[in-house]
Formats: sequence, structure tokens, C-alpha cells
Amino acid sequence: MENCIFCKIANKEIPAEIVYEDADFITFVDINPQSPGHVQVIPKKHARWVWEVPNFSDYFALVRKIARALQGTFGTDAVWMKVMGEEVPHAHVWLFPAPYEAKGEKKDFAGNAEKIRRNLSA
Amino acid sequence: MENCIFCKIANKEIPAEIVYEDADFITFVDINPQSPGHVQVIPKKHARWVWEVPNFSDYFALVRKIARALQGTFGTDAVWMKVMGEEVPHAHVWLFPAPYEAKGEKKDFAGNAEKIRRNLSA
Repeated sequence: MENCIFCKIANKEIPAEIVYEDADFITFVDINPQSPGHVQVIPKKHARWVWEVPNFSDYFALVRKIARALQGTFGTDAVWMKVMGEEVPHAHVWLFPAPYEAKGEKKDFAGNAEKIRRNLSA
Repeated sequence: MENCIFCKIANKEIPAEIVYEDADFITFVDINPQSPGHVQVIPKKHARWVWEVPNFSDYFALVRKIARALQGTFGTDAVWMKVMGEEVPHAHVWLFPAPYEAKGEKKDFAGNAEKIRRNLSA
């Protein structure tokens, strides 16, 4: 969709620290992190709400995979998820280690992305 | 698990306004609602975190089904989801219409449950 910031990230028109990508989805580090390792998991194809993403089952299988990688990367089982959607009108899932538990520096975007990528490929 | 309030709700040892139930999952109205129609979707079998629920794909297919029923019941596409987990150590997904959009009275537990049930069976 024109002028959609998440479509632009999916199309590589805007740079982001990408931790995972396949044909349908992309996961990148949030620039306003709640905690170290805060990522956004989004479908590449524009959808307004998470609930209307057509390959929903694949979407949440990926969300779970990323959540498990965050558990391993940041030393806590407590990985939080939030779906709201009023800020950016493109379906997105927030995933981040519980702020009171996560180890690391939340503004180290490149370093955190690299650690998550290593954990995902392990 | 002994002394787990959500196991007790799943086992009907503690009453709740149930909006959906099958062999594996149960959905009930939250008694501290963020908005009208705030429900908890939980597995009946105890699990500490959402991420470790074995039939995860079924779990989130149900979450989506409930979310769509909330959209229909409360007149908004904006249905929020939160997964945290520090308050009750039994996997649970919060689902509720966006507080600024939802129509209705959030403390009308029985009335809201009845409306959601009607929408689910429609």
C-alpha cells in the first residue's frame, strides 16, 4: 500500500535490522524498543489487521519460532506479545522479552539483531 | 496444577462466564476487563507459557475465531491481543476490543458473554 511504512520496510525501500525473512513474512527490530530484542513480525503483503492475514497459521507458527529464539537469546522464558494496530495500519505483532527480565541493551539494534539471527539459525 | 486459578476455571471448580469451550481450550470473560468483551483464551491442560502449548496451531486458530466474533459483537475491527504471563502462571491470551472503539458496558459480564456466544454460533 502506498505510503505504508511497513510495506516500505518489506520492499526494502526503508532500511531495518532484519532478523528473519521468507517469501511471505519479515521480522525486524523495533526502533522504539520496550526491551532488548523487541521485534515486529509482519506479513509482506499489506493487510490492515492481523486477523485478516490469509496464511494466519503460517504467520503464528513463525511468531512462535521467533519467540523461542528470543527466549534463547535474552535468557528468559517470559516473551511478551502485543497486537494493537492503531499506530501503523499494516498488520504487525510485537514480540519482546519481558522488560524486567531481559538481559542486554535495548538500543543495540545491530547487536541484538545479530544475536537473534544466530539463535534462529542454531 | 494445584492452586492454579486457571486450572480451576478449566475444571469448573471456580465459576466464570464461559463463551467457548472444546476438549482442549476454554474462553471466558476477564473479571478485570480493559474493555467490553475482554476475554481470556487458555488451554485446559496446564502450560506455563503460550509458547509451549503443544497444539499451538489449534490454539491460535481459536484465538482468531474469537477475535472475529469480538469484531462482530462490539462493532470494531480493532481487536487487541496481549500475551504477558506474570500475573497467572498458566498460559493465557488476552483478547479485547480496542478500548477507545468498543461499544457497550465492560462490567456487564453475563450480557457480553451472551452476545459473544451468539456471534460465535451464528
